[in-house]
Amino acid sequence: MMGKLFRVSLFGESHGRGVGVLIEGCPPGLRIDEEYIARELSRRRPGARYTSPRREEDRPEILSGVFRGHTTGAPIVVFVANRDVDSSFYEEIRHTPRPGHADYTARVKYWGFNDYRGGGIFSGRITAGLVAAGAVAKRLLETHGVSVYSYITRIGPVKARVKPRDSEEFRRSIERSPVRCPDPDASRLMEEQLRKTMKEGDSLGGVVETTVFNLPPGLGDPPIDTLDGDLAKALFAIPGLKAVEFGAGFRLASMRGSEANDPWVLKDGRVLTETNNAGGINGGISNGMPLVFRVAFKPTSTIRKPQRTVNLRTGQPAVIVGRGRHDPCIAIRAVPVVEAVTSIVLADHLLRWASWETLRSKILGDV
Amino acid sequence: MMGKLFRVSLFGESHGRGVGVLIEGCPPGLRIDEEYIARELSRRRPGARYTSPRREEDRPEILSGVFRGHTTGAPIVVFVANRDVDSSFYEEIRHTPRPGHADYTARVKYWGFNDYRGGGIFSGRITAGLVAAGAVAKRLLETHGVSVYSYITRIGPVKARVKPRDSEEFRRSIERSPVRCPDPDASRLMEEQLRKTMKEGDSLGGVVETTVFNLPPGLGDPPIDTLDGDLAKALFAIPGLKAVEFGAGFRLASMRGSEANDPWVLKDGRVLTETNNAGGINGGISNGMPLVFRVAFKPTSTIRKPQRTVNLRTGQPAVIVGRGRHDPCIAIRAVPVVEAVTSIVLADHLLRWASWETLRSKILGDV
Amino acid sequence: MMGKLFRVSLFGESHGRGVGVLIEGCPPGLRIDEEYIARELSRRRPGARYTSPRREEDRPEILSGVFRGHTTGAPIVVFVANRDVDSSFYEEIRHTPRPGHADYTARVKYWGFNDYRGGGIFSGRITAGLVAAGAVAKRLLETHGVSVYSYITRIGPVKARVKPRDSEEFRRSIERSPVRCPDPDASRLMEEQLRKTMKEGDSLGGVVETTVFNLPPGLGDPPIDTLDGDLAKALFAIPGLKAVEFGAGFRLASMRGSEANDPWVLKDGRVLTETNNAGGINGGISNGMPLVFRVAFKPTSTIRKPQRTVNLRTGQPAVIVGRGRHDPCIAIRAVPVVEAVTSIVLADHLLRWASWETLRSKILGDV
Amino acid sequence: MMGKLFRVSLFGESHGRGVGVLIEGCPPGLRIDEEYIARELSRRRPGARYTSPRREEDRPEILSGVFRGHTTGAPIVVFVANRDVDSSFYEEIRHTPRPGHADYTARVKYWGFNDYRGGGIFSGRITAGLVAAGAVAKRLLETHGVSVYSYITRIGPVKARVKPRDSEEFRRSIERSPVRCPDPDASRLMEEQLRKTMKEGDSLGGVVETTVFNLPPGLGDPPIDTLDGDLAKALFAIPGLKAVEFGAGFRLASMRGSEANDPWVLKDGRVLTETNNAGGINGGISNGMPLVFRVAFKPTSTIRKPQRTVNLRTGQPAVIVGRGRHDPCIAIRAVPVVEAVTSIVLADHLLRWASWETLRSKILGDV
Repeated sequence: MMGKLFRVSLFGESHGRGVGVLIEGCPPGLRIDEEYIARELSRRRPGARYTSPRREEDRPEILSGVFRGHTTGAPIVVFVANRDVDSSFYEEIRHTPRPGHADYTARVKYWGFNDYRGGGIFSGRITAGLVAAGAVAKRLLETHGVSVYSYITRIGPVKARVKPRDSEEFRRSIERSPVRCPDPDASRLMEEQLRKTMKEGDSLGGVVETTVFNLPPGLGDPPIDTLDGDLAKALFAIPGLKAVEFGAGFRLASMRGSEANDPWVLKDGRVLTETNNAGGINGGISNGMPLVFRVAFKPTSTIRKPQRTVNLRTGQPAVIVGRGRHDPCIAIRAVPVVEAVTSIVLADHLLRWASWETLRSKILGDV
Repeated sequence: MMGKLFRVSLFGESHGRGVGVLIEGCPPGLRIDEEYIARELSRRRPGARYTSPRREEDRPEILSGVFRGHTTGAPIVVFVANRDVDSSFYEEIRHTPRPGHADYTARVKYWGFNDYRGGGIFSGRITAGLVAAGAVAKRLLETHGVSVYSYITRIGPVKARVKPRDSEEFRRSIERSPVRCPDPDASRLMEEQLRKTMKEGDSLGGVVETTVFNLPPGLGDPPIDTLDGDLAKALFAIPGLKAVEFGAGFRLASMRGSEANDPWVLKDGRVLTETNNAGGINGGISNGMPLVFRVAFKPTSTIRKPQRTVNLRTGQPAVIVGRGRHDPCIAIRAVPVVEAVTSIVLADHLLRWASWETLRSKILGDV
Repeated sequence: MMGKLFRVSLFGESHGRGVGVLIEGCPPGLRIDEEYIARELSRRRPGARYTSPRREEDRPEILSGVFRGHTTGAPIVVFVANRDVDSSFYEEIRHTPRPGHADYTARVKYWGFNDYRGGGIFSGRITAGLVAAGAVAKRLLETHGVSVYSYITRIGPVKARVKPRDSEEFRRSIERSPVRCPDPDASRLMEEQLRKTMKEGDSLGGVVETTVFNLPPGLGDPPIDTLDGDLAKALFAIPGLKAVEFGAGFRLASMRGSEANDPWVLKDGRVLTETNNAGGINGGISNGMPLVFRVAFKPTSTIRKPQRTVNLRTGQPAVIVGRGRHDPCIAIRAVPVVEAVTSIVLADHLLRWASWETLRSKILGDV
Repeated sequence: MMGKLFRVSLFGESHGRGVGVLIEGCPPGLRIDEEYIARELSRRRPGARYTSPRREEDRPEILSGVFRGHTTGAPIVVFVANRDVDSSFYEEIRHTPRPGHADYTARVKYWGFNDYRGGGIFSGRITAGLVAAGAVAKRLLETHGVSVYSYITRIGPVKARVKPRDSEEFRRSIERSPVRCPDPDASRLMEEQLRKTMKEGDSLGGVVETTVFNLPPGLGDPPIDTLDGDLAKALFAIPGLKAVEFGAGFRLASMRGSEANDPWVLKDGRVLTETNNAGGINGGISNGMPLVFRVAFKPTSTIRKPQRTVNLRTGQPAVIVGRGRHDPCIAIRAVPVVEAVTSIVLADHLLRWASWETLRSKILGDV
């Protein structure tokens, strides 16, 4: 379960009946309907070109918790039924774990009872639930003017230069790019790389950056339930994500304190930092500056190149070749998922923060 | 709280009565005493040279949960009293947040009621509780032969080359180095950098790598309570930690699938991968290979160089200069803390894993 | 959420799309299918006579977590769609809270956004999810030979005398009774009372007792997560339940220590108590004796007699008369729900207990 | 752990170093000092006559989380050191479980490693931590004018008639009674019973009732985290508590709907119920009426009469006689503990409720 107050649980398998999400603790009165969630889900398929051409017209059904277009305060379930799909391929690989996939760990952990078809619960498809929950979380964030932007800053060797701004124009610059990269030059180079890699039957990794504007200072519950820690944990629920860094991140390791420390300044009565190497978080608590972090995705594990593995039944070496068509770079499709997960965690922390805010004047009157 | 079964909570402040830890859910029968915990705590002060010369002879008191040298199954509290310290300096900075520190976020979140002296709960001193809990967790890991090694792989510009092995020799190569770096050449260069930086009144960041040997495959509870996610969240409780990556981590972003995927092989009847770019985790579950991750620490925030900030009371710009002496690189002192946090999370997941293992034969008899 | 390892969350509304349950943490390999769950659900409609004649042929759909007739270890969702029902009556009572119901508290808590039709999430219908989860939990309990029996011991003025035994015969004696009471004489008198009460348009309260056989000693996690505490909390999720007592319960208040204390005896090498006033729990931990507790249900709130209330919109006094037909005594229909909730909590504690059991020999070898 | 936002964990043993409590999530700015907590702790020793004459001048130390007389928002630990006590008696009973005590279950659960002296963690002494946490919780409740009164309504055969009122006079009528019973006639009869029972070396059970005034409607998080369920769970952490009932409780089982349902009325613009059989809770949510519940305590297990048991080492029957002096009725000393636990749970739910309240106007503006 993600979250303490705004709580999110996932369920479903790639080739089972469907995938979905349970959201508990969501306040009443938020405008939600299936159209809105469908729209958010469709963002998982950006430009058709570099995402898998498998048809996934996700039609979300809200099974509970929404009444007459608003959340009711009761648990919300959103379910996305799977289409009929051919699972015969997966029978073949049942005992032959695919490199880079969770086939082997699933088999060990679940004693062979796991639904291995299409990766089961390890499929990227499970992220539909995260996006649905993120859509609800965003409605909560909107009440405080908090806006979350995720976008690609790297694919394979190509790095982008991005200056995030809290504007519709910036949002459009992301959505306009077939690879979700707001730097048009980098976007073109990334497309080139992807075309080349696809031709070779291979895949590429990537980096997704997220910037959050207008987050109130004071979110995060140290010493343990830090804002960065809760974000990191939740992000690792996204398949293929292998790293996360806040602010200057790993670059901080090679910096000096005099460079790394963000000087405090007052500007129009607001306390800000001149630089933002901390990524908007000090001591696990938001500081009012934009929240900035980056996550790395490994290259798509399924590739058309032959890969070595073993047949666990026979004990013999085996070779496996990815069939069907897959995204050459899962990072692209992950962009709205990262945005959704960020929104979920922030919605939860916004509620926690609010629990004190209500009492503030009553307690301070007491002091 | 860290953990679901082996649960760890921290308390205490830098200049209050002391710091400590509550451990719930620890099985009975583990050999623990104050000597052992004191020994682990003393590892936070490696070579005297590059860690703060402040005297911190931590004398842990076990307040509960241990009886006649063994854990009892009841909640364990370890408390480390603070020495009398001069807090007068902190009065000065009460309204002048230090760059890089949590002074400002603490003030906002806690409405000015926080114990600001020495950073309060944001002080590195709070990690004593983590090391104490890690000491207990290690006893549990030892029952399964799991061993955790943390060590420095980077300080400022100097990178080390390390080949971790599960051996006492490797452990000694870490402890022998004044900077906790098992690569002797790099260690020397790091020392040089530190000396130079200290002379300039500045500080350096660093990277701590961790390798865990002998972890059983099957630990981790996807879709949300993944092993990597739970580790990441817990690690962010360590002050100054800003990034975490598993296996090849951020490098995966620039790799191709054909390089990144770890081929499965059978070796002496065990399923292994030829490479370990995944860092021992697939789909949030341990795969039986060594668990490998790296975390980045920012440079020590307190430096002797003047830094710009604001006086929140007067609204005027201010300049602040770090007094006293501080570690030039917090990553060094963080090494045993990272090891401890890793041990805590693994102990928790070992217990969760065990909850199914007991039932395995009973259920499988049923199939 | 109920449970720490075997975790159960409910969702759904009485007149929405349906009701359901999410089960997380269930081990793989348990035999489950929709037939089995349908059978358990049908037990909520014992003899047709004293339960509401509304048609509720609950057809459970397993949306996830079960593959080829066995649990997979992944989250399980069971959904029971609602039939089309006439909700027009509820429009009438929208602003006129029914005495004994949660109409008013729901309106206050959810700011008027709650789905008030049929009581929404407060309807007895939500218990279908509990019964479905209980069906899964029972499969886990069966692996340890644990058996749970719930039955009526009181309806209105009629009290039964029951001697629970761990046998199919005892189970049949419960199911044979139209009121779920294994004492045939009491059962007849209860039927009489119910007929009379129904004729008068009124309803009756009742007591459900539960006896659990073969529970291993050692379940329960004091000081806070006691077995009795966790059971009590979970039981209060059943609508209409207002009290719970373990063993001799409230009678203990009028007893002396010399009567109340259960003497320890050894019988065939097993440690037992001669009496069972403690109801199988000492200090929050199961002691190996049968677990015994009773819960009280208030009379069905909806009755055909006119009842006084207020119209919250007009501020005028109002009179409300229950329409449709309702169970004259919700305790009867609650019997399998109490059994289910008990099974859920015990399954969770069995898993927690198992987490230590696996390590036992490894740790004890160490002592 | 009790609570989701205001979180309480207990530690310590009867004959170890001491007992204590960790409180997490407490808002800053509440006035707390050791004096205040000491005063609350002293309430566990009402009239000296019917509580154990063992000296327990509990001197609480606040180890963290309080600074200059106010909570800081950081984790609070209160520790109460034990006096040196003679534990030799307990050596004797190490293998001979006392009837009514947790000696046997502790031995089984903790594989014999438990600190058995004085009952270890099962001692009533552990409740000092609950009272300390309750003292902090009360400060939070006071900001909303919520007041909690617990008092004895039954000891052995003697039942009291109590009309609780929200007044200092009512509070004094409780504290004035040596048995914490505000009905003076019943109080005298109870004293008589206690004297007689003590003379016979026996003990008595009792009932503690609690009434909470001024609780806002809307507290409680159904379907599972109900207010009554959370209270019930927490209450079972008090040693010797075996039953809990809300409002008319078990009496509801013998009532008819037309009697049991509380009619809604408007009085001075407030929505109230004419009767309060529901005890202030509908559907797991507070309804604005006084919260009323009763808990039953079994008679003190330790009595001076000989009791039968077994020696688990020899397998032989044994006889045990309580030594030292013990309370003849633990319910009396439990009164402030019940009050404390109630305060803890309500403080937690007040915070949860507050988390929505802050957002209310922002969301409703949106509708």
